[in-house]
Amino acid sequence: MDNHLITAVRQNHPITFTVANTVTSGKVADALSAIGASPIMSTAPEEAADLVAAAHAVTLNIGTPTAELCKELTAVAAAANRLHKPLVLDPVACGATAFRQQINHDLLTSHQFTVIRGNAGEIASLAGVDWDGHGIDAGSGDGDLVTLAERCASRYQTTVVLSGPVDVITNGQATRHNDRGTERLATNVGSGDILSSIIAALLGQGADPVTAGWLGCRLVTTAGKNATKGTNGLGSWQEHFLDELTMITDEDLA
Amino acid sequence: MDNHLITAVRQNHPITFTVANTVTSGKVADALSAIGASPIMSTAPEEAADLVAAAHAVTLNIGTPTAELCKELTAVAAAANRLHKPLVLDPVACGATAFRQQINHDLLTSHQFTVIRGNAGEIASLAGVDWDGHGIDAGSGDGDLVTLAERCASRYQTTVVLSGPVDVITNGQATRHNDRGTERLATNVGSGDILSSIIAALLGQGADPVTAGWLGCRLVTTAGKNATKGTNGLGSWQEHFLDELTMITDEDLA
Amino acid sequence: MDNHLITAVRQNHPITFTVANTVTSGKVADALSAIGASPIMSTAPEEAADLVAAAHAVTLNIGTPTAELCKELTAVAAAANRLHKPLVLDPVACGATAFRQQINHDLLTSHQFTVIRGNAGEIASLAGVDWDGHGIDAGSGDGDLVTLAERCASRYQTTVVLSGPVDVITNGQATRHNDRGTERLATNVGSGDILSSIIAALLGQGADPVTAGWLGCRLVTTAGKNATKGTNGLGSWQEHFLDELTMITDEDLA
Repeated sequence: MDNHLITAVRQNHPITFTVANTVTSGKVADALSAIGASPIMSTAPEEAADLVAAAHAVTLNIGTPTAELCKELTAVAAAANRLHKPLVLDPVACGATAFRQQINHDLLTSHQFTVIRGNAGEIASLAGVDWDGHGIDAGSGDGDLVTLAERCASRYQTTVVLSGPVDVITNGQATRHNDRGTERLATNVGSGDILSSIIAALLGQGADPVTAGWLGCRLVTTAGKNATKGTNGLGSWQEHFLDELTMITDEDLA
Repeated sequence: MDNHLITAVRQNHPITFTVANTVTSGKVADALSAIGASPIMSTAPEEAADLVAAAHAVTLNIGTPTAELCKELTAVAAAANRLHKPLVLDPVACGATAFRQQINHDLLTSHQFTVIRGNAGEIASLAGVDWDGHGIDAGSGDGDLVTLAERCASRYQTTVVLSGPVDVITNGQATRHNDRGTERLATNVGSGDILSSIIAALLGQGADPVTAGWLGCRLVTTAGKNATKGTNGLGSWQEHFLDELTMITDEDLA
Repeated sequence: MDNHLITAVRQNHPITFTVANTVTSGKVADALSAIGASPIMSTAPEEAADLVAAAHAVTLNIGTPTAELCKELTAVAAAANRLHKPLVLDPVACGATAFRQQINHDLLTSHQFTVIRGNAGEIASLAGVDWDGHGIDAGSGDGDLVTLAERCASRYQTTVVLSGPVDVITNGQATRHNDRGTERLATNVGSGDILSSIIAALLGQGADPVTAGWLGCRLVTTAGKNATKGTNGLGSWQEHFLDELTMITDEDLA
């Protein structure tokens, strides 16, 4: 399966429901559409169960949390668990504020997530590890990234995708790496959000969590690296990146 | 008039108020700006009457509905009817959830819409017709699209723009077709939202509903088809599409 | 300092917190990221104090106001004043509705702003001056722009950046001008929002208000003018604009 997942996504258009943040929702929808997935977005708890039922996988992105949104996050997570739909958490900047810490803590203690995708600072915050980052960017700690990811995976009985210059994907037993990251991908607003929802699309296509995590990283970083060719600017990079996501094949990721 | 509407929009900049969804609001604003219209967006009922009064036409896009937004939808629709401003409904994915069905039903039974713009699945849901689609994408039913559009137009005494590979525009008596659609336009997130608000801009410029619906379809599909030249990717297509919307003339659409 | 501010922003990545509107938040985040700043966005009063404490500067953008958002605006403004962080106001279309007028009035009478950035119609509305514009676009009054900006600066004891074909930056005593504006920048949705948050980033890097205002205008208009080369369309202009923001240097702005 590992060898044909992108082809399968482009054929089957798995419905990928993202509770998105208000800054990057358009980029996430475009990226999902570019790889062939079918994006849906909503923040209304009234339709959470209907949309989860229709979806093949779900992502909770906590990039612009509000008290009102917490009802939606809870409703969607509960429905995903009840209906056995893959569930991805993107705990954006979760260490930056007490409010975000509490929301992520509440979600993780009440619901089972298939994958958590975050940078080192975010994964450290969830794992309860003191880390050198200031909680908003990826941070620059010297700790062992694999140990960090494993500790978070173990704590929440999940698969962790710790993204950065080298991505670490682990379920506590199996661990994979991906080292195709580029500087532009790191500074582009929304790269992580896109990665999280693409991992959900791959889960929705039937990939196991470690495979979905690794292939998602591989897909996004390969597209991101190819997109830097012939450009120095953010605008043309973003255009190329979306073009690359449209055209990339399983063979390109092997 | 039919022959000079784009020129008129570029000269007069009709103020086009969209109650937008949170995923495509930026794209809709850019598309309106590219054709020369002047976009405004808001979700606050407190300023609904002021903005409707200032606007030449109004679109209600129900792509990311919430209980809170319902107050806004009602306030804007009521003001548009009271002030005799053209009013367009985009019932995004209205068949996908009971929540969306109820919101659209409430709007359509309490207010008069000038145009409803949706894909086959959405128009079927509003018309109460059993349709083959799953309610989120355009669906793939084999029913007669013209009959479907006419039934919806008749039910709500309005003009229906049913967009798809072939667009059908009908007020129940007069019916027009447009067949310039492209695959890329169909999968691009926000194409329908853009079309709905462009139809509003044309209504705001004084076009009758069938003309506005047909010319809006013609404009968006011509730009969408031209934009595919020399590109295989979503990123460059989106850039070209916006360029085409900027430069297209009445002559290109004849 | 005036000569090295862009270099400094690209080295230090000042954290720039924007309470953004829902239409242009993505564009503002991209523009901040392109010049090297580190954007954060949030609308939750629960985390206002934490984010202001982490930020080097703050912008309140009132482009899509709601009753709920007012709590956030008040919480962020109060925290910025208490923690002595630079605070920028972007009073989008403040003259267009009574609701926006009230929100901006309440903010300006209760909190101290470092910079107010608006077009002529918006600054006139805040200054209580009868102006020829209709309150949504920049308007076309014949009044003296410097007098208008000075009156607003004096009324609120702040620095005003009045942007338009010629930008006027004044604190009531010192006044500077910038005349690199282009038509495309004026019609592009979000140009003003981008400028406001870039001025905040420059304040966060330690620039004084008049310098930050002037350099922000210089930066945005130079990038905007350079971006028009070789393009007639909005899509390619937006891509070039973001590329220019990525590559522009202090020398380009001298």
